[in-house]
Amino acid sequence: MPHIALPPEHIGIRAAMAYRPETARPLNDLVEILLTGPSTLTKGERELIATYVSSRNCTHFCASIHGAIAAAHLGDEAVVKQVKTDFTKADISLKLKALLVIAGKVQKDGKLVTAADVEAARNLGATDLEIHDAVLIAAAFCMYNRYVDGLATVQPDDEALYRERGRMVARNGYVNTSKEYLGKAKEEVHT
Amino acid sequence: MPHIALPPEHIGIRAAMAYRPETARPLNDLVEILLTGPSTLTKGERELIATYVSSRNCTHFCASIHGAIAAAHLGDEAVVKQVKTDFTKADISLKLKALLVIAGKVQKDGKLVTAADVEAARNLGATDLEIHDAVLIAAAFCMYNRYVDGLATVQPDDEALYRERGRMVARNGYVNTSKEYLGKAKEEVHT
Repeated sequence: MPHIALPPEHIGIRAAMAYRPETARPLNDLVEILLTGPSTLTKGERELIATYVSSRNCTHFCASIHGAIAAAHLGDEAVVKQVKTDFTKADISLKLKALLVIAGKVQKDGKLVTAADVEAARNLGATDLEIHDAVLIAAAFCMYNRYVDGLATVQPDDEALYRERGRMVARNGYVNTSKEYLGKAKEEVHT
Repeated sequence: MPHIALPPEHIGIRAAMAYRPETARPLNDLVEILLTGPSTLTKGERELIATYVSSRNCTHFCASIHGAIAAAHLGDEAVVKQVKTDFTKADISLKLKALLVIAGKVQKDGKLVTAADVEAARNLGATDLEIHDAVLIAAAFCMYNRYVDGLATVQPDDEALYRERGRMVARNGYVNTSKEYLGKAKEEVHT
């Protein structure tokens, strides 16, 4: 049961966002820009970073929904499971593996990232902007994960639920999808 | 030295925000709403939560600047130092101490917050919204701290610098103050 009176019709971060729409707006804007905005990293790659960090923070809701969004973008559920278990053996680029090393350190403590980690990513083709975004995605999910867990939001086990939702977010993005639980007028979404 | 080519004329999170203004906007909006928006917690109390979490994450820049902003709001530097050292002995309300217990657990892992922690805060007068905001402030600073540290931004030791900046942010807020390093036209600030 959630620690405070969150709207019972919503789960995970959506309940917390529906409870406090003022803070939901920048929280949604941030994830929209970071995970779906223009980038030389694919949407699937960025969702894998979010999934990996959420998985390391053991936040079931975020690891499941972002895993499902990643799978929808990549058309591949197996690679998502492998990233959660041991990304070094996953069928992803060496550049993304180097960015996941950085993200994994940020998940523990940003000060653990070394110049050698950054150099390794650069040698595998990562740009400064990609390194910046990997750091900020990892940092941001340390926030989202703690927000979801710290309020003891409801985090269902039903995989089909996340799969369906994952496809919807992959198609429409975060800000459009959030309109439903933020009670705003539903706009026409062009997909 | 920062891990990526951040603008050398800025320090701490300001350098990271100047490097990536697209993400700076929601990051600034979030802190503005959480720490300066309408609330039954004073601005000084909210800055103390941010300072405490940043101090526990050992992020010198954030602990120093938010400590200075808290001191500017409260007119008291000693209470800020005491919160960093041992908040249980600080001259702050019992309600704020109960919220700092929750924030301290969120800083480690949101799942550590118990129903008893929340009940204790409620018995000392905390509302659900105050508990929500304490959780989100703590979670958000786990992001800001990792962002600042993960890019190895410059974090000067000069206390006077933070004191001066702290007074400015306490007076003008985050969004207005950030215009300077985000390169937007400076608007008239009514103080």
